[in-house]
Amino acid sequence: MQTKNKSIQLLLTKYHEISLLDKIKAALEWDLNVNMPSKGVEGRSQQSTLLTELMTDLWLKPELKNTLLELQGTQLTEDEQAVVRNMYRLGKYYFRVPKKIILEKSEITTKAFVAWHEAKQKNDFKIFRPYLEKIVSLEREIASFLEYKDNPYDALLDLYEPDLNVKFLDSIFTPLRNELSQFIIKIKESKKYQDKSSFNGRYSPKMQQKLGAYILDLMQYSNAEGRLDTSPHPFTTTLDRFDVRITTKYLENDYRSSYASIIHEAGHALYELGVNPHYSYTPLEGGVSLGIHESQSRFWENQVGRNPLFLKFLFPIFKTLFHEDEMTYESLVHGLNEVKPGFIRIEADEVTYNLHIILRYEIERDIINNSIKVDDIPEYWRDKMQSLFGITPSTDAEGALQDIHWSGGSFGYFPTYSLGNLYAAQFTHTLKKELSFDDLLASGELGPIVEWLRKNIHTYGSLYYPHELVQRVTGEDLNSKYFVQYIKDKYSSLYQLK
Amino acid sequence: MQTKNKSIQLLLTKYHEISLLDKIKAALEWDLNVNMPSKGVEGRSQQSTLLTELMTDLWLKPELKNTLLELQGTQLTEDEQAVVRNMYRLGKYYFRVPKKIILEKSEITTKAFVAWHEAKQKNDFKIFRPYLEKIVSLEREIASFLEYKDNPYDALLDLYEPDLNVKFLDSIFTPLRNELSQFIIKIKESKKYQDKSSFNGRYSPKMQQKLGAYILDLMQYSNAEGRLDTSPHPFTTTLDRFDVRITTKYLENDYRSSYASIIHEAGHALYELGVNPHYSYTPLEGGVSLGIHESQSRFWENQVGRNPLFLKFLFPIFKTLFHEDEMTYESLVHGLNEVKPGFIRIEADEVTYNLHIILRYEIERDIINNSIKVDDIPEYWRDKMQSLFGITPSTDAEGALQDIHWSGGSFGYFPTYSLGNLYAAQFTHTLKKELSFDDLLASGELGPIVEWLRKNIHTYGSLYYPHELVQRVTGEDLNSKYFVQYIKDKYSSLYQLK
Repeated sequence: MQTKNKSIQLLLTKYHEISLLDKIKAALEWDLNVNMPSKGVEGRSQQSTLLTELMTDLWLKPELKNTLLELQGTQLTEDEQAVVRNMYRLGKYYFRVPKKIILEKSEITTKAFVAWHEAKQKNDFKIFRPYLEKIVSLEREIASFLEYKDNPYDALLDLYEPDLNVKFLDSIFTPLRNELSQFIIKIKESKKYQDKSSFNGRYSPKMQQKLGAYILDLMQYSNAEGRLDTSPHPFTTTLDRFDVRITTKYLENDYRSSYASIIHEAGHALYELGVNPHYSYTPLEGGVSLGIHESQSRFWENQVGRNPLFLKFLFPIFKTLFHEDEMTYESLVHGLNEVKPGFIRIEADEVTYNLHIILRYEIERDIINNSIKVDDIPEYWRDKMQSLFGITPSTDAEGALQDIHWSGGSFGYFPTYSLGNLYAAQFTHTLKKELSFDDLLASGELGPIVEWLRKNIHTYGSLYYPHELVQRVTGEDLNSKYFVQYIKDKYSSLYQLK
Repeated sequence: MQTKNKSIQLLLTKYHEISLLDKIKAALEWDLNVNMPSKGVEGRSQQSTLLTELMTDLWLKPELKNTLLELQGTQLTEDEQAVVRNMYRLGKYYFRVPKKIILEKSEITTKAFVAWHEAKQKNDFKIFRPYLEKIVSLEREIASFLEYKDNPYDALLDLYEPDLNVKFLDSIFTPLRNELSQFIIKIKESKKYQDKSSFNGRYSPKMQQKLGAYILDLMQYSNAEGRLDTSPHPFTTTLDRFDVRITTKYLENDYRSSYASIIHEAGHALYELGVNPHYSYTPLEGGVSLGIHESQSRFWENQVGRNPLFLKFLFPIFKTLFHEDEMTYESLVHGLNEVKPGFIRIEADEVTYNLHIILRYEIERDIINNSIKVDDIPEYWRDKMQSLFGITPSTDAEGALQDIHWSGGSFGYFPTYSLGNLYAAQFTHTLKKELSFDDLLASGELGPIVEWLRKNIHTYGSLYYPHELVQRVTGEDLNSKYFVQYIKDKYSSLYQLK
């Protein structure tokens, strides 16, 4: 971006280095997940730690913070204001949390990851507990160093989603929880739900990859700006403004995992690639928040990828690639839209998914507020599963140990998944007023949809905060009604509810 | 490594960071060559430049240089002495050459690479000339900032091979040149040479890769510590002490390129992986010089990979993988050992290869000494080709523009290729006294050979300078007689010379 303001120029120069280090880190992490020989782990971890330290040092340069303070209250353009706001927000963690704590967290989470992994494999929460206790106590400390008005958990939420807080989340999660719980009961009572379908077949990874490549092409995700690889867990990462890579994993007996994750990750990638190039290497680069990011991935995965109209368009391709005689259009649609309350979040369908998040949100909120203890989590989890889903996991591996997030100290992250679903539905409501969404899906013409997202959302990068962006795009604040309506419409039809 | 010396400890701490940055840079370069989407180039180049700057800053920290100076002449263990010597040698470039010049070189070489590429494609030296002139003038300046006794080119040679100089190179290249030229005439006159064999067939990359994997397994290069990928030019790079990766490229109509390069690069990789683990992240890590490194790769490629006994062992594997009826053991051996004076260095056989290097060496020496001009290079090249090989390239693309090295400002690098060949032959001479080399090759048992190299060469990392190492291993200084003898023995037999 262009600016005549010398102080802004200085900030941009400083941020440029931070941005490059961040992308170098992303390259190393991508490699770790996609390529790295097993014995390289220890060295790679040292490399990442060094980059974190170098980045911390850049944030802690006094002239950076001083310049930010000097700029408070001065006359600035919209872009310049956003630069200051974002740098202050990104830097806050470094400015306020003592370096000792930052490094302590980095150290403990490295060990906690190993312990979590072992605990999950052995289904033994005790192995993970001491690490989680230390992490929770650090998170509370971090929250106390950061700013918050009402609730210490707010300080952590804000790290992932600017201005997000408990009050707002309670106000949208409470009705959402009730609506979804009731709707799930209805689905469970339907005839369709009780007709258990079987799902089996062999789907060669090579053909799954071809299918993925075909869809990526429709989505205009180009090989010149990214690539598709395999890794144990699918992810998207930005190695450069023009190099945003995605991964998936192929299950030989189920095409759905790679199908959904490729579209999901490409949704993230298109967001990053669609940001105004003038914002490259500035604090306005990249997606503005995890919630908005997730709205893009969920939009593509669910509103597009699992849409019966789009599946009608794709059905012949599925048939050609997989040569499976038993596959019908109906079984394809049902396979990708089956509602099935289960223990595992990442396997959850659109209808039950948010309940998984609400469960984790409530536990995080309560643990950061000291109203429950780490020791209580497994039982608390089981109780909540029972009350939300009517089922109880028999192991902690299928319960409180299933997710990686807490081992990395990512408290405040989970709610952004649900926000993503809600934003996606609200954005889609607006998009449908401007585009013939159904016709485009039915004809596999995704170009105009990509363009709409680029023009209305992607191009702004991190210029607007999520609540500003959602106002600009949809004319109202985020709420759950569009999502609930979307779910009810879609699944009432799929499950033939009255 | 362990040390009680506080100053050495400080040096080791400083070097540890430098070492990590160096490996991060290697990871980015590996990715650039193996994976990167085309549009990521510009960003990646910014990332590498930043790492170079950070590394330069680390070298330029005053306490580092001061500590090195303080340690001069103090009582130190062998390891500690080597730490000081290597750090001083590695740091010399940063200590003496002004940062302005370092950055100027980095900038001009980035542009020169593009210009060289275009010049080579268009076969137009004029496109590259202004960049090469600037580079040569910078190299002369750099030489003047660095230390040298007799010849400015010595200062550049020393950057790649400690203590290497023109006097020594002249002393070994002169007899080598004469011996080889005469021997080539003999080969050319042989009946075998005049029986032109044809080489054609289709060799699926997948089968070439299988062959490579089989040989890597024999060589004990493990997937836990490395990987084999494809890239436009084969290379080896160290991403960590336990993560050393190699690449190759597969030509559908010729298995020889991938066969030789996989073995060659694995030779480099084994060296890096075989260094004493106590030296990791210290100035004693990694191979000591380009020449010794090349001795390891050339040893494996030529003394092992092109050895008729080893090829006898491998012949059934070749037959099984490629199903080529016409392939006989004799055609395999001849295909991999054909002597054929040609224009292109990287396609050269063992007998003519060093003449390509001598040609480049003489041009570099003369240009750095200002006795020829950049403008004269193409003609100078043609004349030398004529006198060394008896052939004249009709284009500069096949002449002075063929190699990438000068565009990167790597003056002083070429001679290390020939040193590698000579070291390899001299090491093999010693190895053969201690191991039944021929029997091991004939039975495909490469383990004891790897072990010998590890014990006698690899484990020392950068503890000994090349001339010390070659003395320790072989009991004498480097000379060309073992190489000449090796070439004469092998090719007299292959070409049935009297």
